[in-house]
Amino acid sequence: MVHKIVPVGVSARHIHLSQQHVELLFGEGYQLTEAKPLSQPGQYAANETVAVTGPKGSFPKVRILGPARKATQLEVSRTDAFALGINPPVRESGNIAGSAGITIKGPAGELTIEEGVIVAARHIHFHTTDAEKWGIQDKQLLKVRFEGERGVVFENVIARVSPDFALDMHIDTDEANAAGISNGDKAQIIE
Amino acid sequence: MVHKIVPVGVSARHIHLSQQHVELLFGEGYQLTEAKPLSQPGQYAANETVAVTGPKGSFPKVRILGPARKATQLEVSRTDAFALGINPPVRESGNIAGSAGITIKGPAGELTIEEGVIVAARHIHFHTTDAEKWGIQDKQLLKVRFEGERGVVFENVIARVSPDFALDMHIDTDEANAAGISNGDKAQIIE
Repeated sequence: MVHKIVPVGVSARHIHLSQQHVELLFGEGYQLTEAKPLSQPGQYAANETVAVTGPKGSFPKVRILGPARKATQLEVSRTDAFALGINPPVRESGNIAGSAGITIKGPAGELTIEEGVIVAARHIHFHTTDAEKWGIQDKQLLKVRFEGERGVVFENVIARVSPDFALDMHIDTDEANAAGISNGDKAQIIE
Repeated sequence: MVHKIVPVGVSARHIHLSQQHVELLFGEGYQLTEAKPLSQPGQYAANETVAVTGPKGSFPKVRILGPARKATQLEVSRTDAFALGINPPVRESGNIAGSAGITIKGPAGELTIEEGVIVAARHIHFHTTDAEKWGIQDKQLLKVRFEGERGVVFENVIARVSPDFALDMHIDTDEANAAGISNGDKAQIIE
């Protein structure tokens, strides 16, 4: 039996911005600047942060992940969502139609989006060769086990396969804390 | 096959106080007053709250659960623990030796405990007759499944059996949010 072991990255709340929104929040012609590369090739944590405010609360410093994307998207945990007073759906990244709204503030401006806030569905990025080796298809739903005193099996983990991806499982802070997981821990695909 | 279905209660952060600490925080001879009964017979949410403060943050209104107990015990989620700046162990209620400390403030006084802060280990309360019917022993570790888009199997769920208990599974807010669970949802013991 092949053991399908994947490293895990814990995603804290973060935001992706469209270039139009980058300029609205930071000034005309502004370009995000890279602080640190992420596990997925070409993606980075930016030096810039924004404040986000919902009906019940705010987070003053939410990290922007770059580069700029087609649509602005705020990813929060369900715990964060309760604190903000919003009810975002669990969605795959990029699938924001009918999701929750939020107000975003930067040093040069403020804007309110009607949709774009989601709780990210847990998923695994596979490079095409990893997926082929393990017989995993794009969009397949997997079961993934973590051992330990707070051991869990996560069901409905979405496989995302691309030659642009590096092998990495992404979960949010609620999932990490519920299972006692830290960045870089390993998980096993069991089904 | 018998389906072993249990209702789930989500525990937000809360505190149990010794009578000595009740009096230190609220005044000599003070008695907690009941706001609402809990699922376990004789237990209640009190009208009273306290503030708790760690090295990195505080929560100004933490609900007290009554009646008073032998030892003071603060139960927080791992998310809460990061916000407070403490590192409490995952423990069964009552097992506080060597756990984390915290400062507690009430209207009449303030005190610091050196131990007593835990992340509660997930568990199921069984009345003795439920446990006998399903062949479950006190302290047995169970696997419990929740269905849904954030479906999970929780491992190492501790069985606690007593004629004083009512059937109820207790998880914390991180576990509930990671699995999309609300108070009163149902879980299934699968192993």
